[in-house]
Amino acid sequence: MGYDKTDELAINTIRLLAVDATFAANSGHPGAPMGLAPAAHVLFNKFMTFNPKNPDWVNRDRFVLSNGHGCMLQYALLHLFGYALSLDDIKHFRQVDSITPGHPEAHDTPGIEVTTGPLGQGFANAVGLAIAQAHTGAVFNKEGFPIITNHTYTFFGDGCAMEGVASEAASMAGHLQLGNLIAIYDDNHISIDGDTACAFTEDVLKRFEAYGWHTQHVVDGNTDLEGIEEAIEKAKEVTDKPSVIKLTTTIGFGSLLEGTGGVHGNALKEDDIKQLKEKFGFDSSKTFVVPQEVYDLYGKHAAEGAAAEQEWNKLFEKYGEKYSEEHKDLKRRLAGKLPEGWQKCLPTYTTKDPAIASRKLSETVLEKIHEVLPELLSGSADLTGSNNTRWKKAVDFQPPNTKLGDWSGRYIRYGVREHAMGAAMNGLSAYGTVIPASGTFLNFVSYAAGAVRLSSLSHQRVIWVATHDSIGLGEDGPTHQPIETLAHFRALPNMMVWRPADGNETSAAYYMALTSRETPSILALTRQNLPQLEGSTIEGAIKGGYIALDNKEADVTLVSTGSEVSICLEAVDTLKEKHNLKARVVSMPCVEVFDAQSKEYRLSVIPDGIPTMSVEVMSTLGWEKYSHEQFGLNRFGASGPYKDVYKKFEFTPEGIAKRAALTVDFYKDVKPLRSPINRAFQQLI
Amino acid sequence: MGYDKTDELAINTIRLLAVDATFAANSGHPGAPMGLAPAAHVLFNKFMTFNPKNPDWVNRDRFVLSNGHGCMLQYALLHLFGYALSLDDIKHFRQVDSITPGHPEAHDTPGIEVTTGPLGQGFANAVGLAIAQAHTGAVFNKEGFPIITNHTYTFFGDGCAMEGVASEAASMAGHLQLGNLIAIYDDNHISIDGDTACAFTEDVLKRFEAYGWHTQHVVDGNTDLEGIEEAIEKAKEVTDKPSVIKLTTTIGFGSLLEGTGGVHGNALKEDDIKQLKEKFGFDSSKTFVVPQEVYDLYGKHAAEGAAAEQEWNKLFEKYGEKYSEEHKDLKRRLAGKLPEGWQKCLPTYTTKDPAIASRKLSETVLEKIHEVLPELLSGSADLTGSNNTRWKKAVDFQPPNTKLGDWSGRYIRYGVREHAMGAAMNGLSAYGTVIPASGTFLNFVSYAAGAVRLSSLSHQRVIWVATHDSIGLGEDGPTHQPIETLAHFRALPNMMVWRPADGNETSAAYYMALTSRETPSILALTRQNLPQLEGSTIEGAIKGGYIALDNKEADVTLVSTGSEVSICLEAVDTLKEKHNLKARVVSMPCVEVFDAQSKEYRLSVIPDGIPTMSVEVMSTLGWEKYSHEQFGLNRFGASGPYKDVYKKFEFTPEGIAKRAALTVDFYKDVKPLRSPINRAFQQLI
Repeated sequence: MGYDKTDELAINTIRLLAVDATFAANSGHPGAPMGLAPAAHVLFNKFMTFNPKNPDWVNRDRFVLSNGHGCMLQYALLHLFGYALSLDDIKHFRQVDSITPGHPEAHDTPGIEVTTGPLGQGFANAVGLAIAQAHTGAVFNKEGFPIITNHTYTFFGDGCAMEGVASEAASMAGHLQLGNLIAIYDDNHISIDGDTACAFTEDVLKRFEAYGWHTQHVVDGNTDLEGIEEAIEKAKEVTDKPSVIKLTTTIGFGSLLEGTGGVHGNALKEDDIKQLKEKFGFDSSKTFVVPQEVYDLYGKHAAEGAAAEQEWNKLFEKYGEKYSEEHKDLKRRLAGKLPEGWQKCLPTYTTKDPAIASRKLSETVLEKIHEVLPELLSGSADLTGSNNTRWKKAVDFQPPNTKLGDWSGRYIRYGVREHAMGAAMNGLSAYGTVIPASGTFLNFVSYAAGAVRLSSLSHQRVIWVATHDSIGLGEDGPTHQPIETLAHFRALPNMMVWRPADGNETSAAYYMALTSRETPSILALTRQNLPQLEGSTIEGAIKGGYIALDNKEADVTLVSTGSEVSICLEAVDTLKEKHNLKARVVSMPCVEVFDAQSKEYRLSVIPDGIPTMSVEVMSTLGWEKYSHEQFGLNRFGASGPYKDVYKKFEFTPEGIAKRAALTVDFYKDVKPLRSPINRAFQQLI
Repeated sequence: MGYDKTDELAINTIRLLAVDATFAANSGHPGAPMGLAPAAHVLFNKFMTFNPKNPDWVNRDRFVLSNGHGCMLQYALLHLFGYALSLDDIKHFRQVDSITPGHPEAHDTPGIEVTTGPLGQGFANAVGLAIAQAHTGAVFNKEGFPIITNHTYTFFGDGCAMEGVASEAASMAGHLQLGNLIAIYDDNHISIDGDTACAFTEDVLKRFEAYGWHTQHVVDGNTDLEGIEEAIEKAKEVTDKPSVIKLTTTIGFGSLLEGTGGVHGNALKEDDIKQLKEKFGFDSSKTFVVPQEVYDLYGKHAAEGAAAEQEWNKLFEKYGEKYSEEHKDLKRRLAGKLPEGWQKCLPTYTTKDPAIASRKLSETVLEKIHEVLPELLSGSADLTGSNNTRWKKAVDFQPPNTKLGDWSGRYIRYGVREHAMGAAMNGLSAYGTVIPASGTFLNFVSYAAGAVRLSSLSHQRVIWVATHDSIGLGEDGPTHQPIETLAHFRALPNMMVWRPADGNETSAAYYMALTSRETPSILALTRQNLPQLEGSTIEGAIKGGYIALDNKEADVTLVSTGSEVSICLEAVDTLKEKHNLKARVVSMPCVEVFDAQSKEYRLSVIPDGIPTMSVEVMSTLGWEKYSHEQFGLNRFGASGPYKDVYKKFEFTPEGIAKRAALTVDFYKDVKPLRSPINRAFQQLI
C-alpha cells in the first residue's frame, strides 16, 4: 500500500522499455507488457523474494510468464532488478545470439525459470514448480526450519486459458490443493483474432472454481495497485487451494491503439510512441530510458532479496547442524549430483533370466533405485498398472486431507492429462530438487508433443516411461500402435529416445536418462515379453549401439532395436539355413547416444564392406542414416494378438532373413560399399 | 416411457455380448459397455433415427463413443440393429483383419462415424459433426424443407473429461451455442488408476456450465430408463446450448467386481460370467446369445429408420423441384465430387510475378476458389491475420445472436485450441458435406498430433494451413521454429506433407489436398517472401517432386523443398563459379506423392550416376531416402531477422555449394553410384 509517483514511474519505464525494444526490433509484442506492467510491479516489488545476483537460490519465489510473447515485460524486470541482463541486451531484443530472444528461454537467460511462449505451457510449468515446492518442503522442512517456502506466481492470458494443456493443469492443481500457486489471468479481451467475443466467451473464474481454485477479480488492473496488492495478499492467505486472480487490463495501455488487437503483436508506430512518452512524462526524443529512481527502487528490493538469501543461508547452515542427512541430501540435489554409487543398484541380467516385458523391467529398475534416489518422482497419466511406474512402497503425492497420500509422496497421479503431465514435468525439473519420470503409452506421448519439445529446448531432465511401444501391444489396435512416434522424437534435437531390447539395456537406458542432466529421455518399452540377450551389457548399451552378435565373415549387418533384436538374432540362423548367408547383429537402443560416440567406434559397429539392414517395427524414417536398407512398417498396424500382428507384417525370422538376403544381393556389385556412418560433411550443431 | 421386460432383455443382451466378446478375445473393456447399456438402449431405440441398411444417409443422427475402449457397446448395437456387422464379426472381436478392432475405426466398420479410443478425441469429433450439421442445415434447409436436422450424440467418460482436447472442444461448443449436440457423461468414478478421487475431483457439470452448456444429472444411470429418457428429451428441447447429461453409472454393472477398476480393462472371470448370466436370466452355458425379441425390438426401430430415410428421400426429391441448384449442390457433395472445372480457378504464376510468402499465396488460392467450392470451410486457431486463412468476403460461422456471423458462415474462429481444431476437423470431414481447412503455425500442429494421426488413420480429408514453417519465421525464435515437425508428419502413414516453393506449387498443393478424398494434408507455408521459380508448374508439382533445373552433365543433384529451392537455384551458379561443378535442382514439395509415382519417373528425377544432396532447413531425418547427403538443421534455431538466421546456419548459396562440392568429392570413387530410389525390396503397404 501507499503507492506514489515512483511506482508509476517504474511501471511506465517497464512499458516504455517494451515499446522501445519492439520498435527497435520491428517485431514483438508490446501490448501485454504495457497492460501487465502494474501487476508485475506490485508482484515483483511487494511480494516476490529473489536475489538477482543468484538466480539459482532454491527458495526464491518463482515467476512464470505463460503468455511468453510478452517477454519484454520479463526482460525489463530482470534488467531493472539487477539480473545479468543489461540494457544492451534489451537493445538486442530478438537479435541472433542475444539473451533476449523472441520468447523467454530458461537455458540461456538468467532469471527465466522455464521456457514459454507456446501457449498454455508456462501455466502448466507453474503447476509443476508448485508441486516441486510442496514436495520438497514436505521432505525437508522441520520444526523451526522453514527451508522451502517459496510461492509460484504465473501470469497467463486468454490464449493460455483456451489451451487444453492449461485446462488439464488447472484441474490437476485444483485436485492437488496447491495453495502455493497464484495465477494472474490477464483478462484483456484481446487475442490475435481480435475481441475474445469471437471465440472465447466462457466464464473463466467459474471454470476455475469448478476445478477447486480460489478466485478473485480485480476490475481495474491498469491503475488499481492497491486492489492488485490486496488480491495477491488474499491469495497468499488461502493455503489450501491454488488461487487465480482475474485482472481486467487494457492491452497496450496508453497507446493510441490500446484495447485493440493492433497493439498485440506489432511494434507501435512512431507517432504513437511519441504521444505515449509525452503522456508518461518521458522525453520523447530518447529511447531505452531508465530513471535512476527506478533503478533505486528496484535495487532496494533486490538488496532485500539478497539479504533474505543470506538469512536463509544461515538458517540452512543451522539446519545442517541438526539435520545433517537432510542437509547433505538437499545440497547434493542442488549441486545436480546423484548419490555416489547409486548405479550399483541397477539390475543386471543373464540369459538364464526369464523373458520379461521391458515395462516390467522398468518397474524393477524403479523398485531397485527409488530408495537410493530420493529425488526421483514417478507418476503416470492414469495408466499406473499398465506403465508399471509405481514401486510397491510408493506413497502418493496427495493433499493429506484426501487420506490418499501426503505432500512428501513421490508418486503423482496425473490423471488422463498427458500434455499437462509433460509440461508439469518441465516445471518439476526446473525447480531443481527433483527428477520427474512419468508413464503413458508411447502413442500418447504425442498428446504432449508441445511440452516434450520444450523439455528438449530448455534442457530439462525429464523421463517418459513410454510403454506399449509398437504393434506389439496387440489387441488395442491401430489407434494405440505407434508408427510415427519414434521418428518424431528422434527428429527432435536434444532428446534421447531409448528402445531397450532386454533387461541390461533397460538398466542402461535409466542410467543415461538419469545421468544426462540437460537432456530429456523417452524410454519406449514393450507390453510383450522379451528374452534376455546373450551379448547385452549395460556398458555396451550406454554407447547407444553395440554389437550384439559378431561375425567377422558376415555378409550383412542387421541393426535393430527393442523387441526386434531377439527376432534378428533368430533370423541369423534362418539366414544361415535358408540362404547360406552369415549375419551380424547390432542392437541400437538409442541412436542419439550412438551418434555421440567416436567415428572409429561407430564404424566398428556398422562397418564398411557389407550392407546393413535396419529392423524396427514402425516407420523406417531416419533409419537410412544407419543402414543401406530398411525393414519397417510404413502403414498403420492391426488389432489382434501381438504374435498374429507380427506375423501379418512378416516381423518373423523368415521375414527378416528374406529381406536381408535381398539386401546382400542388391549391394554385391557396389564398390566400395561404405558404411552409412561415413558422411561427406559434418552436420551443424 | 413404458419400459418393460424386453427393454431389460435388450440391455442385458448388449451387456453379455460385451462380456462374451472380451472373454473370447481375452482382452478388451467390458466395464463401460455394461454400465452404459441402459443409456445406449434408450438413446438408440427412443431417440436416434438411422437406417442400418444405409449408414451413409446424410440426415441420420450421429453417435460418437468417445470412450472408444467401450466399443463392444457399439459393435453390439450395430449388430442388433442390423448393420452389416454379424455375430461372427463380434466373435472375432480384436482379431487380425476383423471389422471389430480394439477401438472403433470409422473407415472399416459400417455405422462407426469416427475413429475413437485415444481419449477426448471423440468428444471433439462430435463438436465437429455438430458444427457441420448446423452449417449444412443453415445452407440447405428451406421453409417447409427441413433437410438437415440431425442431432449428434456422444458418450464420454472420466478419461475424456480430463483430456485437454475435450476441454477445448467443450469451450468451443459452448461459445458456438451448438444446440444440436447432446453429450452423455459416464460418471462411473473409475479410471484405470482406480477411483477418480485420486486425480479427478473437479465439478464437471459446473465446468460445463461455465462453458455455456445446459447441464443435467441422472442419478441412477443403471436402471432409471425413464430418467434417462426425460433428460435426453429435455436436452433436445434446449436448442440454444449444447447439453451435457451427467449419468451416474456402475462400471461393470452386474459383475462381482462392479464399480471397481478390475472390470475396466480386463475380461471377466468365468465364474463371474456364470453368475452374471444367471442373474440376467440367460443360459450360462451359452455364449453370444441374442434372444429373438431383441432382434425384433431393434429391427422395428431400424425399420422405422429406413422408413424415415424413405420419407426424407421423397422430401429431398421435392426439394430438388423447388431448389434445383441447392439439390444439385448437396447431391454432388454427398457423392464426394468437386464441382466440374473448379481447378481452373487455381492461380498460376510466372517468373514475372513478384516474390510472395507462401502463406499469402495460400490466401490467394482461398480467395480464388472459395466461390466455386462452397463446401470449403476455412478457419484458424486464433491466427487469422498470420495464417491468411480468411477470404475477404468470408462470413464467420457464429451463432446469429452474437451478431458476428451466422450458421451459414464458412469461417470458423477456433480460438487458441489447436487440438480441438484438429479433432473438430475430423468430425467436419466425417459429416460428409464439407471440407475443413484451418490454420495455425506449423509448430503448433504438434499440439494437435493426437487428432492429426486420427485424420490419417480414418482417411479424413482435412487440410492444415501450417504457416511460419521454419526458422524463416525469424524473430519469434526457437520456441516457434519447427525442426522435427515435418519428419514427424512424414513418418505418419496416409498423410501428405506439402512444402511448396512458390505460387504454382502452392496451387498444386491445394489441388492435391482437395482432390485426395481419403488423405489429410499439411501445407507448410512460409512467413517470408519466395520468388516465383522458372521451372515450376502445377503439373510438375502434383507429382510430388520434379526437375526444377535440369543439366544433362550435372555432377550433383540438389533436392530441396519450399523456401530453400530458390536458394539451391542460386547455389547452382555459385557451384559453377567457385567449384567448377554443374548441378541440377529437384523441387520436392511432397515426398508422399512423389513416392506414388512410377519408379521410372522417380529415377528420372533423382537419377543414378551422380550424388544427390538434400537441402531443407530443418531435421534431415528421412531425407536419406531421397539423397546421398543431407544439409539440414538438426538443432534448434535462433531468434532474429530471418536473413540473419539463415546466414547463421549457412543456408546460403555459398553454404549449399560448399557442401555440394564435398558431396561430389566424397562419392567420386563409388561405382556404381545408384540413386537412392533403387531399393533392395519393397516396403509393406
